[in-house]
Amino acid sequence: MEEVYKRSIELHEKMQGKIEMTNKIAVDNTDTLSLVYSPGVAQPCLEIEKDPERAYDMTMKGNTIAVVTNGTAVLGLGDIGPLASLPVMEGKAMLFKKFAGINAVPICIDSNNTRHIIETITRIAPAFGGINLEDIKAPESFEIEEKLQDLGIPVFHDDQHGTAIVTLAALVNACKVLGKELSEMKVVVNGAGAAGIAIAKLLRCFNIDSDLCKPVKQLIVCDSKGAIHRFRHDLNKAKTELLKYSNFQDVKGDIHDVIKDADVFVGVSKGNLLTKDDIKNMAPSPVIFAMANPTPEILPEDAFEAGASIVGTGRSDYPNQINNVLAFPGIFKGALLARAETISTEMKLAAAYAIASSVENPTREMVIPSALDTSLAEIVAKAVEQAVYHEREMEKKMATT
Amino acid sequence: MEEVYKRSIELHEKMQGKIEMTNKIAVDNTDTLSLVYSPGVAQPCLEIEKDPERAYDMTMKGNTIAVVTNGTAVLGLGDIGPLASLPVMEGKAMLFKKFAGINAVPICIDSNNTRHIIETITRIAPAFGGINLEDIKAPESFEIEEKLQDLGIPVFHDDQHGTAIVTLAALVNACKVLGKELSEMKVVVNGAGAAGIAIAKLLRCFNIDSDLCKPVKQLIVCDSKGAIHRFRHDLNKAKTELLKYSNFQDVKGDIHDVIKDADVFVGVSKGNLLTKDDIKNMAPSPVIFAMANPTPEILPEDAFEAGASIVGTGRSDYPNQINNVLAFPGIFKGALLARAETISTEMKLAAAYAIASSVENPTREMVIPSALDTSLAEIVAKAVEQAVYHEREMEKKMATT
Repeated sequence: MEEVYKRSIELHEKMQGKIEMTNKIAVDNTDTLSLVYSPGVAQPCLEIEKDPERAYDMTMKGNTIAVVTNGTAVLGLGDIGPLASLPVMEGKAMLFKKFAGINAVPICIDSNNTRHIIETITRIAPAFGGINLEDIKAPESFEIEEKLQDLGIPVFHDDQHGTAIVTLAALVNACKVLGKELSEMKVVVNGAGAAGIAIAKLLRCFNIDSDLCKPVKQLIVCDSKGAIHRFRHDLNKAKTELLKYSNFQDVKGDIHDVIKDADVFVGVSKGNLLTKDDIKNMAPSPVIFAMANPTPEILPEDAFEAGASIVGTGRSDYPNQINNVLAFPGIFKGALLARAETISTEMKLAAAYAIASSVENPTREMVIPSALDTSLAEIVAKAVEQAVYHEREMEKKMATT
Repeated sequence: MEEVYKRSIELHEKMQGKIEMTNKIAVDNTDTLSLVYSPGVAQPCLEIEKDPERAYDMTMKGNTIAVVTNGTAVLGLGDIGPLASLPVMEGKAMLFKKFAGINAVPICIDSNNTRHIIETITRIAPAFGGINLEDIKAPESFEIEEKLQDLGIPVFHDDQHGTAIVTLAALVNACKVLGKELSEMKVVVNGAGAAGIAIAKLLRCFNIDSDLCKPVKQLIVCDSKGAIHRFRHDLNKAKTELLKYSNFQDVKGDIHDVIKDADVFVGVSKGNLLTKDDIKNMAPSPVIFAMANPTPEILPEDAFEAGASIVGTGRSDYPNQINNVLAFPGIFKGALLARAETISTEMKLAAAYAIASSVENPTREMVIPSALDTSLAEIVAKAVEQAVYHEREMEKKMATT
C-alpha cells in the first residue's frame, strides 16, 4: 500500500472521527442550564415560532450547512455507498470549518432514488442554513440540485460549481498574464460530467446580465465520444442543453481533432489523454488546465515542452492547483451572511472574480491562490454577499418600474 | 417577561448557536490535508466499503447520534414545528456532550407524517451510531420508535424511557430508605402519555427475565379520565396494551379514588392536581413523585405536611430532581461502546439500577443523584455495556442449546 494510504488509515483509526460537536458555552451550574435548556429555552423557541427568521439570530442554523451525499460518485472510487463515503464528508466538513468557520454536518443518505434524496433533504432542511451536495453521481445530481432550488436555503453541488468557479478564476488570470481577452479565446472543455458541464455554463455566463461577464464566444465541449454537436443522437438532457451555448458551428471529431487551434484546454476527464502533438496542434502558447486526478490529461512538464504557456492541474505538487476549496467555503459564507435563498450565477461569477483578484500580481506559475490560503474565504464571502445585495436591489428596481 | 426568559433570549442572541462542529486535528499543511482528505482518505473509504463495521473505528459514527424531532411536542409548548424546536435540540446536544462526550446532531424533520419520519430517519442513519427521538407527539412517537427497532443502530425515545429509567432508579432507592420491597408496593401512575406508559412498562419489567427485575405487582395507570381498565371503550392502542400488565382488578374511578391506599404516586400529568387529603388517603408514609413541569401535581411542602415520606419532582429547586439527564447520556454511551443495535429492556433496567446504586447512602432527601453529577454517565454506560454483553452471551447460549 502506498505510504499516504497507510498513514491515512493510521490517522483515521487514531482519530475515530475527524470532526466533533462541541459546546460553545460550559454547562456547569443550574443557572446556565436553565438558560440554554429548560425552562429558559422556551422563549427563543416561541420567538422563532412567531418569526422563523429569528432562527438565524438565535440558533446554529445561520452558520451550519449539511454536506449531503449518497456515496455514488466518491472521489475516483465511484459508487461506494453512503457509509463508506463518510470519511470524505468529514474531510469536507473540516475544510468548511478551517477556511470559513462554518459548521458542516455530514449527511449520508442511504438511497439511489432521486425523488427520495430530494424528499429527504427537504425534510431535514430546517436546522440548516445551506446544503452542499457532494459526490452524487450525474445526471442524478443535476436533477437533485435543480429541484431543490426553491427550498429557501442555498443548495449547491460543489462538484459542479466549485470546480467551475475556480477554473474561471484561473482563466481570468491566465488571460491577464498573457494579455489576451477571455471572450476571444477558443476554449475546449473535455469531459461532460458534473464539472465539465458547469464549467461550460459559467464560461458562457449563461442567461446572465452582468458587468463581470464577457461570455467566451467559441466553446466546444467533448465527452468520451468526442465533440458534442447537434447531429449526435446519444446525448442526455444535460448534454443537449449544452448545445444552447456551445459548438455553434457543430464541429465534429474526437478531442485530438477538436483541440486543433484551441487557445485553452480544460480537462476534467482522465489521465494521459493528450500527447505533446496535441499541444503543438493548438494555437500558439496555449493554456492547459489538465485537472484529471490523480494523473492529469497531460503532465505539466510535457505540456510546457510542447509549447504551453500556462499549465494548471488538480495536484498540490505542481503550481496552479485548481482546487474547489478556493471557492466553496467563501461561497457558503457569503450566502449565509446575506441569508441568500439560492446560489445564483451572479454569486458564482462574483466568487470567481474575487478569487482571481486576490492574486495581486498573477504570473504563469501563479494564476490562482494557494489551496491553503486562509485569507481567501473572507474575500470571496464579501464579494458573494455583495452580489446578493446587488441582485436584491436590481429585483427591487425591476419591481418598482 | 420572566427574568430567566429574558436572559435566555439574550444568551441565545449572543451565541447564535450553542453548539458547533469543530476539527479534531489542525489542517495547516498539505501533508495533513492529503491524509484527512484527498488522496489519502480513499483508503479508509475502501476499507469501510469492504467491512461496514470499520466505520466505528475510523469515523465519527461510533460516537455520534442524531437528536431527531419534528417539533410536535416541545417542552410544555406543544406543536411549535421543527425550526422553532431547534434551540431545545441544541440544548439537548449540549447535555450529550457535557455528560457523555457524545456528538449529537440536531435533525429537525419538517413532517407530521409518521411514515415520512420513519423513512427520513432510515435514510440518514448511515453516519450516526444512534438516534435519540425527542419531543415528537404521542402516539406517533410510539409507532416511529417501534418501527425503527430493526434499523441496526439504537433508536431511543427519551421522553418515554429516559423518564421511566430515572423514576425506577428513584423508586428503588426510596424503597431502600423505607425498608420496603418495591414489588410489594401499590403504585399509581397518573398520566398515560409517552412517559407514563414507559414508566408503567418498566415497573412491570414487561416480558423480561432478569435478576434485577422484580415486577411491581399492583400497578394502576390513570389518564385524564381516571383509571385505565378493561371496561373502557375510549382507549388507544398504547393504553389498551397497558392492560396486559396493570390494573388486573379493573379498579375504576378518578385519580382521587384510585390513589387511596397507594404506597407510591408517580405523576407525569399536570400541576396542582392533588390535595393534601389525597395524600392523607394513601397508605402510611407514601412516596410521591410529582413530576409535572413546571408546577408539580402537589408541592413538596404540602405533600410532606400531609404525611408523605419521600417526595421527588422534576424541579431543580427541590431535593430529588427526577431528570432524564441522569439516564440518556450514559445509556447512549454504553450502547455505542457495545455497538448495540437496540436499547433493550435489560439495558434500561441496568441503567436504572446503576443510577440507584450510584447514591452510596440514599436518604429521604437524596434518592437520586444530582442532575449535574458528571461522573454518573460513565457508571451508567459501564452497566449498560455489560448488559449488552450479557444479553449476547445469553443469546449465544440459547443458540447452542
